[in-house]
Amino acid sequence: MAHHPLIERHQAVLDRAVAALASRDYWSPFPEFPKAYGETAVADGAAAFEALKGGELLTDQPGTDGRVGPGPEQGGEVSPYGPELGIAYPHASSPDALLAAMEAAQADWAKATPLFRAAVCVEILMRINARSTEFAQAVMHTTGQAFGMAFQAGGPHAQDRGLEAVAVAYAEQTRIPARAEWTKPQGKREPLVMEKEFVTRPRGVSLLIGCNTFPTWNGFPGLFASLATGNPVLVKPHPRAVLPLALTVAVAREVLAEAGFSPDVVLLAPELPGEGLAKTLAVRPEVRIIDYTGSTAFGDWLEENARQALVYTEKAGVNSVLIASTDNYQGMLSNLAFSLSLYSGQMCTSPQNLLIPREGVATDQGVKSFTEVVDDLVGAVNSLLGDDSRAAALLGAIVNPGVLDRVERAGKGEYGELALAPRAVTVPEFPEAVSRTPALVVLDAARDELPGECFGPVAFAVAVESAHEGIELMERTVRERGAMTALAYTTDADTEWRVVGACVDAGVSLSLNLTGGVYVNQTAAFSDLHGTGANPAANAAYADSAFVANRFRVMEVRRPA
Amino acid sequence: MAHHPLIERHQAVLDRAVAALASRDYWSPFPEFPKAYGETAVADGAAAFEALKGGELLTDQPGTDGRVGPGPEQGGEVSPYGPELGIAYPHASSPDALLAAMEAAQADWAKATPLFRAAVCVEILMRINARSTEFAQAVMHTTGQAFGMAFQAGGPHAQDRGLEAVAVAYAEQTRIPARAEWTKPQGKREPLVMEKEFVTRPRGVSLLIGCNTFPTWNGFPGLFASLATGNPVLVKPHPRAVLPLALTVAVAREVLAEAGFSPDVVLLAPELPGEGLAKTLAVRPEVRIIDYTGSTAFGDWLEENARQALVYTEKAGVNSVLIASTDNYQGMLSNLAFSLSLYSGQMCTSPQNLLIPREGVATDQGVKSFTEVVDDLVGAVNSLLGDDSRAAALLGAIVNPGVLDRVERAGKGEYGELALAPRAVTVPEFPEAVSRTPALVVLDAARDELPGECFGPVAFAVAVESAHEGIELMERTVRERGAMTALAYTTDADTEWRVVGACVDAGVSLSLNLTGGVYVNQTAAFSDLHGTGANPAANAAYADSAFVANRFRVMEVRRPA
Repeated sequence: MAHHPLIERHQAVLDRAVAALASRDYWSPFPEFPKAYGETAVADGAAAFEALKGGELLTDQPGTDGRVGPGPEQGGEVSPYGPELGIAYPHASSPDALLAAMEAAQADWAKATPLFRAAVCVEILMRINARSTEFAQAVMHTTGQAFGMAFQAGGPHAQDRGLEAVAVAYAEQTRIPARAEWTKPQGKREPLVMEKEFVTRPRGVSLLIGCNTFPTWNGFPGLFASLATGNPVLVKPHPRAVLPLALTVAVAREVLAEAGFSPDVVLLAPELPGEGLAKTLAVRPEVRIIDYTGSTAFGDWLEENARQALVYTEKAGVNSVLIASTDNYQGMLSNLAFSLSLYSGQMCTSPQNLLIPREGVATDQGVKSFTEVVDDLVGAVNSLLGDDSRAAALLGAIVNPGVLDRVERAGKGEYGELALAPRAVTVPEFPEAVSRTPALVVLDAARDELPGECFGPVAFAVAVESAHEGIELMERTVRERGAMTALAYTTDADTEWRVVGACVDAGVSLSLNLTGGVYVNQTAAFSDLHGTGANPAANAAYADSAFVANRFRVMEVRRPA
Repeated sequence: MAHHPLIERHQAVLDRAVAALASRDYWSPFPEFPKAYGETAVADGAAAFEALKGGELLTDQPGTDGRVGPGPEQGGEVSPYGPELGIAYPHASSPDALLAAMEAAQADWAKATPLFRAAVCVEILMRINARSTEFAQAVMHTTGQAFGMAFQAGGPHAQDRGLEAVAVAYAEQTRIPARAEWTKPQGKREPLVMEKEFVTRPRGVSLLIGCNTFPTWNGFPGLFASLATGNPVLVKPHPRAVLPLALTVAVAREVLAEAGFSPDVVLLAPELPGEGLAKTLAVRPEVRIIDYTGSTAFGDWLEENARQALVYTEKAGVNSVLIASTDNYQGMLSNLAFSLSLYSGQMCTSPQNLLIPREGVATDQGVKSFTEVVDDLVGAVNSLLGDDSRAAALLGAIVNPGVLDRVERAGKGEYGELALAPRAVTVPEFPEAVSRTPALVVLDAARDELPGECFGPVAFAVAVESAHEGIELMERTVRERGAMTALAYTTDADTEWRVVGACVDAGVSLSLNLTGGVYVNQTAAFSDLHGTGANPAANAAYADSAFVANRFRVMEVRRPA
C-alpha cells in the first residue's frame, strides 16, 4: 500500500524529531523570528487577527445551542491591552452532545496507524506554524504577553512542544513492533511458532483544560500527546484565552477532515460566565485523560475527583534563586533582571525568592554585601526597564485583576520593605493596557516567614545566614510549595555539589550560573524537560515517556504460524 | 572508573534482554527444565526445602518484635498438600520501623546508576535461578501447584518476567542520556552552548502486595521494575504464600549487601492472622508505588484509597472462548482440555466461559452439534485426567477453601446442569491434598445469565445463537467483567475479522486457533504482554513502558559550557 501523502511529506521531520529526543541537542523545524516567515508576515498576522474580530469561529461544531461571546457578558474575551476581541465561539447544548460526537468520531482515528496519526499531527502543526504571526496576536491579546514573546512562546516554541509530544507518542507506540514471529525450540521436536500482532488502542476522550497565560505552550503537549496516541481531544480553554486554542482546534479539524477523518476528533468547549464547565467535564465517565495547567486548588481538585481519568497537572510553585558567589557579577545581574521582568513574572517558571547570604556574595568585583547585591539588582532592572517602550516590549500587560491586586499590594509595602517599587508603564499603541515593572521586596529569613507563591511581578530578596542555609530553604520550599525551576550562582565546588544534591533530592531541575542569553524561565523542547513530576508543582513533565506511554494500551493477537 | 564486577558479569544478558523486548521473539536465559540445573537438582531442591521447615528466615531484618509463624495460629503456612511448613518470619514492631529502615537505606540505592542497579537486579535473579528447584518446592507448597508447574511458572518463567522488568527499567532510564550538549545558533553571534545532565530519581517506597497463586510470577514484575528504578521495595506477601517471597527477599538482601548497599532496600512484611497489614501500609505517605495482584474488591479499594501512590493492579476477570469453527477438532479439544485442567483453573488466565453456537460447529470431522462439542470436550478432559497420578501432576491441589467451596457447589449442580462432574483426585505422596478435576456446567445464553468470575476448576459451556452472538457476549463480558485472556476458534475470515475487532475494541488480547503446545493460559515474557490495562481486570500490563516509566522521575542540571 502506498503511503498517504501526509506520511511522505512529514516522515523526515518525524524521524528527525525522534532523533532529537535521544540526543537532546538543540533542534527545531520552526524558525523563532518573524522575519523567517516573510517580509509581510507581521503585518499579515495583524490583518488576519483584525479580520477575526467581530466574527465567529468553529460554526461547524456539532451539538451547538448558541454562542459564547462576542461580548464580555456572554464570555467574550477582552484583551489585557484594552480592546474587546468580539469573537463568538460555539456553545454546546450539553456535554452529552460534545461527547457523543467525539465517541462517534473516535473509531476511525483509533484505527489509523501511529505513523499516519503522527503525520496528521505534524501537518496540523505545520499549518499552525505558517500562521505564527496570527497566533502571536491571538496569544498577545488573551495573555497580555508582549508581541515578541507571544510570537516565540505562543508560536514556534509551543509548536516545538507539540511536535515533541508527537515524536514521543510515535516512538512509544512503535516500541513494540506491529508484528513479530515467536519461535520457541522444543528440543528434538518441531519448534513452537507463533505469529503475533500488537495493536495500540487509545484510552478514550482526552480533556485539555487550558490556562490563561500560555494557552498554546502549555496546551500543545497534552493535546498532541493524546491526539497522536489516537484519543479524541476535547479542548476546554480558559475563559480569558479562548482564541489561541479555538484557532488550533479549527486547524486540527480542517486537517483531520482533509485526511479522511471526522473533524469531531477535536472539539472546542468554551463556556459562558459562571458555567463551571471544567468541573462538569472532568468527572464524565467518557473522559479518560485530563491535561491541566493552572491553580493548585483546581489541580488538586482534579487529582482528587477525576478518578476515572489519568490526570496530568501543572500547578503552582515557588521558584528560588541562590546567589552564593559568581565570577560574572554583571552577567548575573543582567540575567536575573531579565528573568524577573520577562512577561511581568507571570510565568510558572519565573524566579521569585532570591536567597542571598547576609554576609555578602563573593564576585569578580569583590565581595558584595547583601544590600549591595539588592541595590545592584534594582539598578539592573531599572536600566533594563527605564524606557517605557522597551519596558513594555519585555513586560507585556498584566493578565488579570488578581495579578494586578498582588503587585499593587506589594507596592503599598504589604509584603515587606520595598527595595524596588513597581512602576506603571505606558504601552505604545495601547493606552488602556495595564503594565507594571516588578516589585522587589526585602525579607530576612531569620525574622520573616518565606512567602508562598506570589504569581506576577513580585520578587523577594531574602537575607539568609549562609549559602548552606539558602540551600536548605530552597530544598524545603521545593518540597513544601513545589517549584518549576531553580537557579543557583556559585563558583564554589562544595556549594555546587550541595545545591545539585538538594535539587535532585527535592525533585526540581536546576540551572547553574546563568549569565548570558539562556534564562531560568525558559526550557527548550527536545532537550529540557519542563517540570519534573517529582514535587508538588506538577505531577508530570513535558515530555518524557511517562507523559505519553499510558495514553494508549497495547492489545495482542497471536496465532500459530 | 572501572565497572563494578556485577556490571561486567551481566552487561551482555542485559543488552540481550533489551534487544528481546524490541524483537519479541522467544528468548530466555533461564532453562525451563529441571534437568538443565544438574542431575541432582530436583533432589537438592527438595532437601533444601526440607531444611527450611521448622526454621526461621530473615532474622536480620530491623524493627522486629516477634515472629510470624511457625504455627498456623501465628500465621505460619500450611501446604495445600497437607503439611505445615513450620517456618517463622520476622514480625515488624510497626510499619514505622520498616519504613524508617527503608528510608534510611534508600539514598545510596537511589544514587547508583541505572546500569549498576540493573546489574544488581540481574545478579539477584541469577541467584534465584540457581535455586529454582528449591523455589519450586516453596511455590508448590504455598500455592498448590503441581511440582512441574511450580518449577516452570514459579521458577524460570517468573525470573523471565523479573528480568523483563529490569530490562524495561534500564531502557526507560537511559532513554534520556545522562549528559548532553546543547548548541543553539545565534546568527552571526556566538552560539548559546549549555551542558546538561539528566539524573533519574526514584519515587519512594514501593509496596508489593503478593498473591496466593503466583507469588513469584505475579510478584517479580513490580518488584524488579521498582527496584531497578531505584525505589526500595517492601514486600507484603499473601499470608498463605510467604515462603517464595521470603526467599526472594533474602536473596535480594544478600546481593544488595555484597554490592555495598544497605540490605534494607528490600524488606519483607509478613503479618499475623487478622492484622490487615496491606491496608495499613497502602495508605502510608511514604508508600509511593503499589503493585497488587488479587481480588477485584481489594484492588478497587487500593485504587480508591491509596491516593498518594501509583497503583498497578491485576484483579479478576472472566475469560471467554469462542468455538465457531476449526480445521483441527482433536487439536482444539486437547488444547482446551489442557487449559481447563492446568492448575485446576486457578489462573487469572484460565478460560471460563466457552461460547458454542447452538446449531453446531464446522470442523474437519464434519459439523458437530453443541451437545457433541460438549461431550467431546468432556471426553478429552476425562482422557487427559483419567489416571490420578497423571491428573495430579497437571491439576495440583486446591489452593484454598473458597475455591473448594465453589467446585463443590458446582458438583451439586448449583451453577447449572453438569456436563462433567468434578472428581476428587488422590495425589501420590500427599494423601491429605485436596485435588479436583474441573466441572463443566452447561448453560444457554437465551435462558441463563452469563456467570461472573468463578475462579477455580469450574467452566461453563454456553450455547449461543451464532458465532456473531458469541462475539457480542465475549465483548460485553470483557467490558463489564474484565478479562485477562480471550481465545477463539474459527476458520472463517469474516468471523476472525469480527472477533479480532471486538477484542481490540473491548481491550483484551486474543489467541486464535490454539491446537498445539501453546495454551491461552500462558504468556511468554519478552514477547507477550500479560494483561492490557484496557479492561476492568487490570490497569497495567507486564511489562510495557507504561508499567515502568513513571516509577522514576528525571531531574536536569544545566549550565553554560
